[in-house]
Amino acid sequence: MIRIPQSLKAFIDELSDLPSIGPRQATRLAFHLVDKGKQSVANLADNLDKLKNIKVCARCFFIHENPGDLCDVCADKERNQKMIMIVEKETDLISIEQTKKYSGRYLVLGVIPKTGILDDIQKLRLQSLKSFIQKEFGGQAEEIILGFNPTSVGDWNAGILRKELDGFSKKITRLGRGLPTGGEIEFADDETLEGALEGRS
Amino acid sequence: MIRIPQSLKAFIDELSDLPSIGPRQATRLAFHLVDKGKQSVANLADNLDKLKNIKVCARCFFIHENPGDLCDVCADKERNQKMIMIVEKETDLISIEQTKKYSGRYLVLGVIPKTGILDDIQKLRLQSLKSFIQKEFGGQAEEIILGFNPTSVGDWNAGILRKELDGFSKKITRLGRGLPTGGEIEFADDETLEGALEGRS
Repeated sequence: MIRIPQSLKAFIDELSDLPSIGPRQATRLAFHLVDKGKQSVANLADNLDKLKNIKVCARCFFIHENPGDLCDVCADKERNQKMIMIVEKETDLISIEQTKKYSGRYLVLGVIPKTGILDDIQKLRLQSLKSFIQKEFGGQAEEIILGFNPTSVGDWNAGILRKELDGFSKKITRLGRGLPTGGEIEFADDETLEGALEGRS
Repeated sequence: MIRIPQSLKAFIDELSDLPSIGPRQATRLAFHLVDKGKQSVANLADNLDKLKNIKVCARCFFIHENPGDLCDVCADKERNQKMIMIVEKETDLISIEQTKKYSGRYLVLGVIPKTGILDDIQKLRLQSLKSFIQKEFGGQAEEIILGFNPTSVGDWNAGILRKELDGFSKKITRLGRGLPTGGEIEFADDETLEGALEGRS
């Protein structure tokens, strides 16, 4: 039997542990990198190493590399600090920012465990949000938007957060549900249509 | 608009350039790594860095980390050196080795470009195989197996290699075609069935 070099095996195992990468893709990627040669492996290792310098915003926990403690959104005085969207993932925040239609700020909570029990980091992040709301706005934000996916898991998580944040905001809302723009009624599933009927305007 | 740290952007771009990773998956992976924290980023960078020490076999061009120039297969005196399977990818070689049913050796050619024109590395590898066959076996190997995919691209590539290797082997064969073991006739597509009929035994 042929042996795969130990260093390659270790790298493949580590890649396989990443979300959405299976062992087969990890193997293909690792071989691709080895084939591309020493220089490109060194480049990728360097780039990866630089990630260690990325900072996390003290207010919303999004990443940044500003001199201060705050990310671009939280440092922006023009943005409405009393409107807070809670998202699970940084990539959700980026998607919302790309619309250029949201002028509030965020809280990046991290993906909520399937048990529905917030982990320690998530508890700390929520606690820091509550303290901020109490200190800055005397106890109530204007609006907290629960920017969770329009799925049953998202509904469940929204329920948890509503309980957690009870009393800390005048309004707690979720993103609207309906037909995706450009989509066709004929091809929409029942639940989407139901959401579109309920959310009609 | 929120800015993504430059180092993260560079890393995402580099990941996106890898085969089978799109920009969306690259972004998700990068954020996952940043979220996991400095230590795991450092670990991955270290592992990646170690890949630079992997060597390539002087005979078949598979990777190895043996003290000498040869990989496990080529260094194994028990294996039939006169039977050579040409594969495009290292992962194909691994799949064949896992069957434990092949006792010859290999040549890892690299993926043949869609143009059908071999690149410089591939020409050198074929040349080194031809020189080996001439020097060691006086001009002819026993059998060369073209271990290419059973697809029209694979057929095309096999045609190219047959021309290249004309006269260098007593036999030039390909892997058999037929129904995948465990599969059902009912669900096989026409071309597979055709192959199974032709390849019946």
